[in-house]
Amino acid sequence: MTTRRLLLSLALLPAVLAASGEPDLPSWRDGASKQAIVDFVRDVTDEGSKNFVSPAERVAVFDNDGTLWSEQPLYFQAAFMLDRLKSVAAEHPEWKDNPAYPALVARDDAMLARIGMKPVLELLAVANTGMTTTEYAGTIRNWLRTAQHPRFKRPYPDLVYKPMQELLAYLREHGFETWIVSGGGIEFMRAWTDDAYDIPPERVVGSIAETHFELRGGEPVLVRDPNVAFVDDGPGKPVGIYRAIGRRPIAAFGNSDGDLQMLQYAAVGEGRRLAVIVHHDDTEREYAYDRESRIGRLDKALDEAKARKWVVVSMKDDWKQVFPWESP
Amino acid sequence: MTTRRLLLSLALLPAVLAASGEPDLPSWRDGASKQAIVDFVRDVTDEGSKNFVSPAERVAVFDNDGTLWSEQPLYFQAAFMLDRLKSVAAEHPEWKDNPAYPALVARDDAMLARIGMKPVLELLAVANTGMTTTEYAGTIRNWLRTAQHPRFKRPYPDLVYKPMQELLAYLREHGFETWIVSGGGIEFMRAWTDDAYDIPPERVVGSIAETHFELRGGEPVLVRDPNVAFVDDGPGKPVGIYRAIGRRPIAAFGNSDGDLQMLQYAAVGEGRRLAVIVHHDDTEREYAYDRESRIGRLDKALDEAKARKWVVVSMKDDWKQVFPWESP
Repeated sequence: MTTRRLLLSLALLPAVLAASGEPDLPSWRDGASKQAIVDFVRDVTDEGSKNFVSPAERVAVFDNDGTLWSEQPLYFQAAFMLDRLKSVAAEHPEWKDNPAYPALVARDDAMLARIGMKPVLELLAVANTGMTTTEYAGTIRNWLRTAQHPRFKRPYPDLVYKPMQELLAYLREHGFETWIVSGGGIEFMRAWTDDAYDIPPERVVGSIAETHFELRGGEPVLVRDPNVAFVDDGPGKPVGIYRAIGRRPIAAFGNSDGDLQMLQYAAVGEGRRLAVIVHHDDTEREYAYDRESRIGRLDKALDEAKARKWVVVSMKDDWKQVFPWESP
Repeated sequence: MTTRRLLLSLALLPAVLAASGEPDLPSWRDGASKQAIVDFVRDVTDEGSKNFVSPAERVAVFDNDGTLWSEQPLYFQAAFMLDRLKSVAAEHPEWKDNPAYPALVARDDAMLARIGMKPVLELLAVANTGMTTTEYAGTIRNWLRTAQHPRFKRPYPDLVYKPMQELLAYLREHGFETWIVSGGGIEFMRAWTDDAYDIPPERVVGSIAETHFELRGGEPVLVRDPNVAFVDDGPGKPVGIYRAIGRRPIAAFGNSDGDLQMLQYAAVGEGRRLAVIVHHDDTEREYAYDRESRIGRLDKALDEAKARKWVVVSMKDDWKQVFPWESP
């Protein structure tokens, strides 16, 4: 264990260095939410505290859509997949006679309901499979550079939350491992989470498409298949955490009912834990939605948060600034 | 990226410190195998080299059974599962009438062949499911403390290879991330890989049993189910690497045909890569087997190693010492 111990103690150096510099979490307003987070971190990192947690066990997990970046008016990965559908339509003249195609492109909910999920999923499968994982990652990166959010008229990666970027860095400076645990596809997130959050590919847990290995023209590649291998959402999130991390997190951050079981898994039990819900209540700077929303519905988890005294962050009141490019 | 850059440069400190101390890889005899490994590491870590690889991309993957510890006369996890079967037999009087039970316990191959796999797998499923992942991990740890290897009369974790422990540490000191990518079950490995190899749970990729989340008596737990979710063997290994790591390794270490696709995935392609096969040719200190063995068969991968000039390590000739407890 010697080398790792040494590395861990070295990893704490930035915290020591930071102590003399900037204040922590500059985009967070002083208040109960910020205080709860700072108190938790102080408690579990203080060797004299009865709640001290060794650095190896300081695992913090974050949902992505709606927790680290926006998810309205449509999950950004869904926007990507719709654009992908349109961009390959010319190669699929047979879609002319498939009612799922115009219904999807027009987002005609009534028509989609009549058609049912099966033809829709088949269409998306055709548009997103058969290529290598490397080719697909290139397509994603290209889209992230060029596509624009309909309201903010900016590339989607601009819609990350500055207070959450600060929180991720703050936790890492205090010896935490920060992980993304999201319902989104791993390949869609890995294309940009390293730049946006300083979270490398191996710390991204998400939904997984089947792939298979082959030697294509002598080159070893993984090729995307149409089936879904794993859905990292709802009760799937603790399973995804177990498979990828193998430790129970002591802190979890989410924003919707899809995060409920992850929050329970991290926060219910002995020892000091932290569960945080980002509540979208800021129509002016971002969006306001919860119990009735089709995207990112927050209903059961909001009840649970109240019952268990979890931290509910108000974007409107707790954050001085939402996006990195806004003036504070 | 600033914090991680700082951490990465700090992570290289041990290498600097080590430069003045012990020689590298003391249990390895000087020779072509050791030289090939040291040359590779020097080349990809030298900023002046055209083959320089940034620390973030220095991913090295290791098979476990037969590569990092022994696997004869029976995969150790199989030995655990047989013992597990016997230890819960009293709770299953119905097994009295099930021919799979005595056939398994006696390892009666002829009988097992007549019975077929289905009843055998069902029996093993019953014996290894229904409990929480935490309870199961406790069972594994208890077995690892008490069970003895039939030939060496020592606990199984004593049968790790000292030269490979040194190699893991050597790579980490040179900025590599070291990962286990094994056909074995993740929970079986995670119980001891941190102590044995300094490889924490989140760096263990393996085969996965289905689990589901539930609140059991108010406590959030994961419960083992009878189905297999993922087989991390053969062509499954590159898939497991993609899912868990999301980067292509530049170095891979294996010992059997089950590692062939992982070795190809890491080693075939542009840039400097390293593929190493541990060849069991040491009857006296360990075991000798390859093309004809039922456990850890090395046949196609040995041909491929010769064709592609991969490093084939002779346990007999290249290792001064095999196990940590032997005198060198």
